[in-house]
Amino acid sequence: MEAMFGGIEGGGTKFACLLGRGPQEIVAEHTFPTTNPHDTLGEALRFFRDAAVGYRLEALGVASFGPIDLDPHSPTYGYVTTTPKVGWPHTDIVGLLRGQFGVPIGWDTDVNGAALAEQRWGAAQGANPVVYITVGTGIGGGTCVNGAPVHGLIHPEMGHMLVARAAGDSFEGICPYHGDCLEGMASGPALEARTGRPARALAADDALWDLEAYYLAWGVKTVMDVLSPQRVVLGGGVMEQRHLFPRIHRHVQRLHNGYLQHPAVTAQIDRYIVPPSLGSRAGALGALELARLALAQAP
Amino acid sequence: MEAMFGGIEGGGTKFACLLGRGPQEIVAEHTFPTTNPHDTLGEALRFFRDAAVGYRLEALGVASFGPIDLDPHSPTYGYVTTTPKVGWPHTDIVGLLRGQFGVPIGWDTDVNGAALAEQRWGAAQGANPVVYITVGTGIGGGTCVNGAPVHGLIHPEMGHMLVARAAGDSFEGICPYHGDCLEGMASGPALEARTGRPARALAADDALWDLEAYYLAWGVKTVMDVLSPQRVVLGGGVMEQRHLFPRIHRHVQRLHNGYLQHPAVTAQIDRYIVPPSLGSRAGALGALELARLALAQAP
Repeated sequence: MEAMFGGIEGGGTKFACLLGRGPQEIVAEHTFPTTNPHDTLGEALRFFRDAAVGYRLEALGVASFGPIDLDPHSPTYGYVTTTPKVGWPHTDIVGLLRGQFGVPIGWDTDVNGAALAEQRWGAAQGANPVVYITVGTGIGGGTCVNGAPVHGLIHPEMGHMLVARAAGDSFEGICPYHGDCLEGMASGPALEARTGRPARALAADDALWDLEAYYLAWGVKTVMDVLSPQRVVLGGGVMEQRHLFPRIHRHVQRLHNGYLQHPAVTAQIDRYIVPPSLGSRAGALGALELARLALAQAP
Repeated sequence: MEAMFGGIEGGGTKFACLLGRGPQEIVAEHTFPTTNPHDTLGEALRFFRDAAVGYRLEALGVASFGPIDLDPHSPTYGYVTTTPKVGWPHTDIVGLLRGQFGVPIGWDTDVNGAALAEQRWGAAQGANPVVYITVGTGIGGGTCVNGAPVHGLIHPEMGHMLVARAAGDSFEGICPYHGDCLEGMASGPALEARTGRPARALAADDALWDLEAYYLAWGVKTVMDVLSPQRVVLGGGVMEQRHLFPRIHRHVQRLHNGYLQHPAVTAQIDRYIVPPSLGSRAGALGALELARLALAQAP
């Protein structure tokens, strides 16, 4: 029987499941709304049981919304932990899957999954390290070094970085912890708090977009200072406004102020800070790659 | 014949050479002032030729002052490049060593070498990732993920990160590119520019030390946001003022403002942000480990 991997993107609004080995080898896929853990995980289990008939399921991967426990020494490893999402706090996802399928289970954040997929098959192929930042309801980041997602004390978050307030900007920011950190100034809800309207209702030539690009550029500049990635992928709902990219490119160049004399910054920044290329499958494909890594590391 | 590694810390003021396999297995060592490349590298070559008699030299590692070329695809890989240090621009160190000894050569920045050594044998044992920040004439950083130094577009630098100006601090900063970035506000020369006296001439209870700790805490907090290391080692001349550590601990806790509820921050921050433990041998020991990694990766 042909060997296949299973990938689950566990998102806050939808679950996406894939059986396959990569974007060109997808045997089956199924996407459905995230409701309560019992129904949602039940639907994922059913999908893999049905789809895997005739194949050998070698490993599963999950790229999950969070916060999640990534510490392999923790008794709650593999759990969604203290999420505000009703019904989901303290849900043991890895334990459930391991009990049902008895295969190695990869487990990581949704944004680490997206980083991994874009590095393996998408907009960041050939680059190392890769940073993926998602700009939407919140701002989160993930990073892959040498083909594996980085975990540490917890995992890179990136949303709560310091940014420098633009001259004349009196918006106080919406982060309950830091006020005017990156997430507080540049997430979707921050844009909405400034105007009273959803970000997508703003015209492409609204001056607010340049301010948004300025704050996101601080995020990218800081990531470059700390990690020197070979590519930065910016995804999430806010980044569907593709006109943000050239604005961010200009601001990042300006913030480095000539210090970083590298062609990726001075001449080819449009190929350095890029949108994702795998679309809505990125998370599930990343989960597939997490499955492959879990199999490779299994005892 | 017993196999040994050679390690060279190429510093701006001294070269330190080691023959051995680790801190408990040092066969010979030699430290001498950095003069011109011909004499300095000549002395290093002589040391290894003499010390290695009776042993098999398996690989060499160099942890070098910079800027250096770390791109293996570059024609000037292994060079010290555009350094202001007289006589040293465009010096091919790796090529010279390879030509003389015909063994694999590891090559990295001095601070990546220190990070590697502290992770393998010193203050950051068991932690992953590890960040090492040196605070002296400049501020530089290095990071190891899964036992290997991180390189990317260039390599993590960390010195030019954004910091938030303390209330009432009117010092403009000394960075020629960014003015009041971390290095501009908190390097040794920045301290000296504030007072007209060398940093080490300040009394331990001088209020300036708390301001210094505040800016360094921004650097550590940002590194935590971006990379979530499991330990942060702060070394370099300025950090010999050990009273800075408890001050930095308090400021880092304050800057997170309750967001990061991890025991490493809330309860054990004195074991999270730590001084180096390998002393003046850290760089050469890191170079020894670079030699071991180069051998492991040799074709």
